[in-house]
Amino acid sequence: MADAERDDAEENAGPLLLTPGPLTTAPATRRAMLRDWGSRDPDFVALTANVRRKLVDLAGGTETHVCVPLQGSGTFAVDAMLGTLIPPPGRTLVIVNGAYGRRMARILEVMGRAYATTETPEDVPADPAAVDAALSGNPDISHVAVVHCETTSGILNPLDDIAAVVGRHRSSLLVDAMSSFGALPLDARRTPFDALAASANKCLEGVPGLAFVIAKRSAVDAATGNAHALSLDLNDQWRAMEANGQWRFTPPTHVVAALSQALDGLDAEGGVSGRNRRYTENCRVLVEGMRTLGFETLLDDDHQAPIIVTFKEPDDPAFEFAKFYELLRRRGFAIYPGKLTARPSFRIGCIGAITADDMRAAVGAVAASLQELGIPGIQTRSS
Amino acid sequence: MADAERDDAEENAGPLLLTPGPLTTAPATRRAMLRDWGSRDPDFVALTANVRRKLVDLAGGTETHVCVPLQGSGTFAVDAMLGTLIPPPGRTLVIVNGAYGRRMARILEVMGRAYATTETPEDVPADPAAVDAALSGNPDISHVAVVHCETTSGILNPLDDIAAVVGRHRSSLLVDAMSSFGALPLDARRTPFDALAASANKCLEGVPGLAFVIAKRSAVDAATGNAHALSLDLNDQWRAMEANGQWRFTPPTHVVAALSQALDGLDAEGGVSGRNRRYTENCRVLVEGMRTLGFETLLDDDHQAPIIVTFKEPDDPAFEFAKFYELLRRRGFAIYPGKLTARPSFRIGCIGAITADDMRAAVGAVAASLQELGIPGIQTRSS
Repeated sequence: MADAERDDAEENAGPLLLTPGPLTTAPATRRAMLRDWGSRDPDFVALTANVRRKLVDLAGGTETHVCVPLQGSGTFAVDAMLGTLIPPPGRTLVIVNGAYGRRMARILEVMGRAYATTETPEDVPADPAAVDAALSGNPDISHVAVVHCETTSGILNPLDDIAAVVGRHRSSLLVDAMSSFGALPLDARRTPFDALAASANKCLEGVPGLAFVIAKRSAVDAATGNAHALSLDLNDQWRAMEANGQWRFTPPTHVVAALSQALDGLDAEGGVSGRNRRYTENCRVLVEGMRTLGFETLLDDDHQAPIIVTFKEPDDPAFEFAKFYELLRRRGFAIYPGKLTARPSFRIGCIGAITADDMRAAVGAVAASLQELGIPGIQTRSS
Repeated sequence: MADAERDDAEENAGPLLLTPGPLTTAPATRRAMLRDWGSRDPDFVALTANVRRKLVDLAGGTETHVCVPLQGSGTFAVDAMLGTLIPPPGRTLVIVNGAYGRRMARILEVMGRAYATTETPEDVPADPAAVDAALSGNPDISHVAVVHCETTSGILNPLDDIAAVVGRHRSSLLVDAMSSFGALPLDARRTPFDALAASANKCLEGVPGLAFVIAKRSAVDAATGNAHALSLDLNDQWRAMEANGQWRFTPPTHVVAALSQALDGLDAEGGVSGRNRRYTENCRVLVEGMRTLGFETLLDDDHQAPIIVTFKEPDDPAFEFAKFYELLRRRGFAIYPGKLTARPSFRIGCIGAITADDMRAAVGAVAASLQELGIPGIQTRSS
């Protein structure tokens, strides 16, 4: 273990990642990739089964849901979830308050499926009453798609209330839980959903290359022939995996092994509640520190998920984001290099194998970078 | 380096993989995954650009083609290539002599595109004259899809002759080069093709989780709006990457880093010709050794690619494949655990970070396993 740590110090020459993912991972997670696996060998079949079971358990879906892992990024899993679980004649209401909600609409557009949207501004949580009204006014809507934590801003959408509304209308709820799964509570026994999509490299702290859908067994089972693409057919993927435990097509073996290790790390941390505690503390330290420097958050505190925080850009001509990014980078911190929100802002992530001390160091690096930019005090543009 | 080797010996507790991929990789390739990368950080943008450039160069497409990498397995890239580069009203002739040719037909079926097939038995190479006749008889065919090395049997299809026929008919050639790219010569300047799909974890000896399409710039550029799925839209992926060097959606950063290292390894081995030489020797040692034990190959030697070899099952009631697999596995060798061919057979791969000495050891393990099964001498079923 001393060796492992030394190697890690040697090897991980990259910056600390304060992004929405890929994230800084634990050394043990990366070291799990030092073995090659035969993708159809019984050892790897067992590894896959173990990961699938753990993911279903995490979602509280042990009795009702199945986990269908998928090669690719989180968007591939969302694409697969929408294409497989919504029958082609279905019509979907997409709830939008940021880039990832809009992306779901775009995914449906490309596959030629009918949809409507209901939108709130990016700093306003989705509105269950508006969803209720949209469903009442459009009885042909079969499915509702929503982002749990909209990474565009870091806003938390009121998933429980939305699930209740969708349930009353006997529609099916599909959740993009990319940025929340593993760190925010989401339990199928309390929050009814047909499916959620998430990925290995967000709050589960695995490495990127693997995503998954946790779906009601009955919904996946009924979805034969819906999918728009063979690679993205979750029904076919699930049936093949149930038959012999193998992936239809070559799995990212090393990435699966890393996720398995990362899930052990999640257990060791006390599961979702333990992880939530660390991320919440990371977020608190970050926001307090940045406010001390004069920064304002885009969101009200009660809408802020402890995942990623959007700060308004300082209202100072000396603040140039590209320079700011580079100065932070030189100090060992990589933030998201760009903005997704409508107004000038930047984002700093709270997730990954990082601690409150790392967040303090990051705030220190922000302060030093501002000084180097010649910005002694901060004023942010009034909203 | 001594440390690295010791760690590798410790960590890579798995068997030697004699499969069509994922493969046994070099320790340096796996160790390249010990660093986390910011997926939109300039360092990773540069890494991606370097990998893309090297792949296009390998295909002889520097002046004419572009590399569009894609998250997922090789099949995802084939799915994306067919869906993006064939306009929806197009009709495709799929050349079939094994599971991967059939899979291309299935991919087109799922996306609802028109196609025809021309088939040869799995031990007979694709027939350029039959392709010529099919194209003459079906002037509405716009594209021809073929597998270069059909991994089902290990057979090499006559790509140059097929390309010439397709060119004469002014059709577009799309190649599944999954099992050949990096080890068998394929140069866009000599063999005209519109696109090929391949993956990181075959003859390039990277790890799985990343695939790519090398396509004529003009073909990708003209393909706006063709794709059946946002995730699989190579036109969109390419445009985004050309704009800022970034991936649209989270890339498998560690897998990309491993491929970059693996490509350095390919250079060091003398490129495609150096790798071809090693694999050819691996294949020769394997086939000679197995023939000495009494095994027969499914294919004639002049149709055999030095990638994976199919051996007919011994005609002995004591030969039970599952037991044979397990006995080889205990001796440290994992072969492909099943058959794809119509007749009873098994396959042993020659590719990956393995040498002729490994193949000799594998033949020794086969001999010992046969003895343990109580099969002193071998007779194979006559064809």
